[in-house]
Amino acid sequence: MHELIQRIRDFNRERDWEQFHSPKNLAMCLAAEVGELLEQFQWLTEQQSRNLPPERRAAVDEEIGDVTICLLNLADKLGIDPLDAAGRKLEKNKLKYPVHKAKGRADKYTELG
Amino acid sequence: MHELIQRIRDFNRERDWEQFHSPKNLAMCLAAEVGELLEQFQWLTEQQSRNLPPERRAAVDEEIGDVTICLLNLADKLGIDPLDAAGRKLEKNKLKYPVHKAKGRADKYTELG
Amino acid sequence: MHELIQRIRDFNRERDWEQFHSPKNLAMCLAAEVGELLEQFQWLTEQQSRNLPPERRAAVDEEIGDVTICLLNLADKLGIDPLDAAGRKLEKNKLKYPVHKAKGRADKYTELG
Amino acid sequence: MHELIQRIRDFNRERDWEQFHSPKNLAMCLAAEVGELLEQFQWLTEQQSRNLPPERRAAVDEEIGDVTICLLNLADKLGIDPLDAAGRKLEKNKLKYPVHKAKGRADKYTELG
Repeated sequence: MHELIQRIRDFNRERDWEQFHSPKNLAMCLAAEVGELLEQFQWLTEQQSRNLPPERRAAVDEEIGDVTICLLNLADKLGIDPLDAAGRKLEKNKLKYPVHKAKGRADKYTELG
Repeated sequence: MHELIQRIRDFNRERDWEQFHSPKNLAMCLAAEVGELLEQFQWLTEQQSRNLPPERRAAVDEEIGDVTICLLNLADKLGIDPLDAAGRKLEKNKLKYPVHKAKGRADKYTELG
Repeated sequence: MHELIQRIRDFNRERDWEQFHSPKNLAMCLAAEVGELLEQFQWLTEQQSRNLPPERRAAVDEEIGDVTICLLNLADKLGIDPLDAAGRKLEKNKLKYPVHKAKGRADKYTELG
Repeated sequence: MHELIQRIRDFNRERDWEQFHSPKNLAMCLAAEVGELLEQFQWLTEQQSRNLPPERRAAVDEEIGDVTICLLNLADKLGIDPLDAAGRKLEKNKLKYPVHKAKGRADKYTELG
């Protein structure tokens, strides 16, 4: 991951794009790229999304690439390691959704209202 | 990263949540989490987003954790390595935005219309 | 609609919030609210989403309210009438997706890659 | 608005696209279109977003059109009037953000953590 982050830094510096890359702007960029990922899935059934034909899969692979680049870029600017942040959040989620309450229940992890 | 993916798998299996985790649903989950990240930045100036006070920074750290969990979960279900996908996309972006055309120009990477 | 826009203007002016309401920020706000709407649907099947139980429906109603407020606020700041914009786009879409090509085909309206 | 909703219904029926238009899918579509709107604003300063040049403004107008079509389509499928929902939510927001507490404070309407 660190080698990839370095390549992203070089890519941006060569293009003098760092001036545009405030965390606010990179969060927008991340959301825009996730929008493109959603577009690939929006008219598929859940079952179809589990068995993507090759062309669709290639398109999804590209969008996941874009999302990952934006996320690493944003986290790098904030000095946050996304894997560490994910590990910390996973521990919090274990407390929030204890197995005996959450088992098999989707409603346990979407708040209403 | 692979150890974290294993922990995410265990977390989901223990709660019997895999049944809800079609790629379509996980893409929605990713977008919903990115929405929460946007919420943290929406009223800040770009400058403020570069210097987050500790409480805001802790909130952003949590949201980046959630986004990363969703992204790893989605990529895992699709059998895609997000770092490899990002590396491939970065090479494509080098061709799409050559340095001599893109240097210092934000308009070069947002298409109009 | 015009009466509602006036109420939104009054709401914002009373709170002195117009200073935060650049179109850029309002677009982020719209995306954050749409994220909350997604959250309501993410673990439902398509069929469940067609028959929401009363509590879920009330939560969706609130999120649609938030999304509409943000959209009207944004469009108002830009001097764009969203219904006129939608009417214009619908005419463009008729040309982009002619009936004889698009009939019954979801793939006709998601571009690949 | 009701005439526009009727035109959207006709557009969809002529293309036999209603089969894809579960509320879940339409919420994804709305999020994808909002992603395209974000893309137009992501590298602009707040000040630039207040004074869009004509080409950018035309692109934003189209995206607002798409967002509005998706929102009306979704609300129509759910039997929700988006303007009524917005009016109800505005009244709730008045109680949630009383003037004397919220005046001039952006932090009053973004929750931390």
